[in-house]
Amino acid sequence: MTYHRTIAIEFNHCDPAGIVFYPRYFEMINSVVENFFADIVGRSFAQMTTGGNHDGVPTARIEANFAAPSRLGEKVEFALNVQRLGTSSLALRITASHQGQNRLSADLTVVWVNTGRPAPWPADMRTNLLAFQERSI
Amino acid sequence: MTYHRTIAIEFNHCDPAGIVFYPRYFEMINSVVENFFADIVGRSFAQMTTGGNHDGVPTARIEANFAAPSRLGEKVEFALNVQRLGTSSLALRITASHQGQNRLSADLTVVWVNTGRPAPWPADMRTNLLAFQERSI
Amino acid sequence: MTYHRTIAIEFNHCDPAGIVFYPRYFEMINSVVENFFADIVGRSFAQMTTGGNHDGVPTARIEANFAAPSRLGEKVEFALNVQRLGTSSLALRITASHQGQNRLSADLTVVWVNTGRPAPWPADMRTNLLAFQERSI
Amino acid sequence: MTYHRTIAIEFNHCDPAGIVFYPRYFEMINSVVENFFADIVGRSFAQMTTGGNHDGVPTARIEANFAAPSRLGEKVEFALNVQRLGTSSLALRITASHQGQNRLSADLTVVWVNTGRPAPWPADMRTNLLAFQERSI
Repeated sequence: MTYHRTIAIEFNHCDPAGIVFYPRYFEMINSVVENFFADIVGRSFAQMTTGGNHDGVPTARIEANFAAPSRLGEKVEFALNVQRLGTSSLALRITASHQGQNRLSADLTVVWVNTGRPAPWPADMRTNLLAFQERSI
Repeated sequence: MTYHRTIAIEFNHCDPAGIVFYPRYFEMINSVVENFFADIVGRSFAQMTTGGNHDGVPTARIEANFAAPSRLGEKVEFALNVQRLGTSSLALRITASHQGQNRLSADLTVVWVNTGRPAPWPADMRTNLLAFQERSI
Repeated sequence: MTYHRTIAIEFNHCDPAGIVFYPRYFEMINSVVENFFADIVGRSFAQMTTGGNHDGVPTARIEANFAAPSRLGEKVEFALNVQRLGTSSLALRITASHQGQNRLSADLTVVWVNTGRPAPWPADMRTNLLAFQERSI
Repeated sequence: MTYHRTIAIEFNHCDPAGIVFYPRYFEMINSVVENFFADIVGRSFAQMTTGGNHDGVPTARIEANFAAPSRLGEKVEFALNVQRLGTSSLALRITASHQGQNRLSADLTVVWVNTGRPAPWPADMRTNLLAFQERSI
C-alpha cells in the first residue's frame, strides 16, 4: 500500500532562487514519516517522546535524488512505501511529484529506539506495519 | 586537502529528544558547502544569485549516514573533501565529528547551473577546485 | 470577519523542552498571512514574487505575547483579523488557541511594496480587503 | 554594557526576494540570547535543559521593528542590552545593524522557569546579570 500526503510549497520553504531549499525537503519527508506513524502505525511522535520511555524512530540513513525543482505555490504529492521491515529497522521509500513530474525520490532507514538504544518493534506496531505492506491499494 | 568548519549546536537545531533534528544537519552541510565556495572556489552564493546570470550550485543527490547523535552545546567539526570534479558536477564528502566520535558522513553531488541549466564549470572555479584537490594538508 | 487556519504541531516545530520553539510561531504566522493573501486578498505570494514587478508584503513590525506553550501533536487554531487598512500598510491581529486556551496573540503590520518601495495597495486588493473587513462572521 | 555577536547571512536565512525571511531573525535573536546566557550569565541552555530541573528562559513577549532588509553574504552585527532585571523576568533590547545601517530593533522579555513555573533568578545568575548591567563599555 502507499501512504499519501500533500504539502503546499510556502514562502518559508523557498530559497533566493525561488525554489525549495533542499534541507526543507527533509523537514517535509520527516513530516510524512511522522504522520505515517500516527495514522498507520498507531504511535504518534508525541506518544513516543512524552511516554516516559524515551521511544523514538531516529533516521539512521537517508539518500535523496532531486530530479526537478519545486516552486512556491505548488501542491506537491508525497508517497510513502515500506521497502523492508526488519527486527528494529524500517526501510521506507518516499517520492514526491507535481502534476506527474518527479521531484525527488528518497530512501531512508529509521530505527525503533527505546531509552536510547535500538530495540525490536513493539508487537502492535509490527502488526500494523505488516498489514500496511500487505494491503493492496 | 580538507576544508574545515566548526558549528556550535544551538537550541534551534535540537528536537524534543534534545539532539540535532536531522534536517538541520542538511542546513549545516549546505552552510559548509556555501562557505567552501566563498572561501576556496572564489564564488560566493551571493555573487551567484545576484549576478544576473541565475548561477547556482543546486544539490542533485545526497546520501547521509548518521552514526551518533549530536547534543545541545557541542561544537561539531565538519570536514569537506572533493571526491570528483566533473565537467559540470562536483562530488563532495562531508563528515562531522565531535571529540573524535563520528557523527555523520555525507556524500553529495552539486551541479553548476547557469540560467537554470547545467553548464561547464567556469575556468576560474575549475582552477581553484583543482588546486584545492592537489594541495596536501 | 475572521480568517481561520489550523496548524498541527509537528516534530520540526518543537524544542528540547518538547514545546514549540517560538521562532517557529513566526513561520506559522507567516503561513497564515500567506494563505490569507491567496484565499481572501486574491494575490498569492507566488504571483507577487514571480510576476516580474518584485511585489511583496514584507512585515515592518510585529509584536507577540506568548500566553502558554503548545505541544507536539496539538492542532492549534489560528485566527486572523484586519485591524486597520492604510494606504500601503495593513495592520493584522493573529491569535492562536487550543481547546479554548490562548497560546499567543500577535499584532503585525505588513506593507505593500512594488520594486522594493512602499506603494498604495492595488485597487483589487484594497477592494477585497475592505470586503473582508465588512463581512460579518 | 553591551553584548555583541556577528551573524553571517547565509542561504538558509533568505527568502525568494533574496533577503532575510523575518522568522529567521528570531532564530538569530534566540541564538544571541543563548550565547549571552552561556558567556555572561554563566548558565548555558544545555545546562538548563539537561540539568534535571527543567530550567529554562522562555520568551514571554517580543516586539520587533524591521528597518531595512539584510542580504545574503552580509555580516550583521547584533548588540544586546539589559533593560530591566525583575525578580524572575529579564527585559532585553537587541539591535542589528550592518555598516552603520539599522536593520532591526527588538524588545523581549524572558522569564526564568523551574519545573515549568516562573521562579526567582538563582543568586549566581542575578549577580552576573547585575555585574553586566553595571560594567561600562
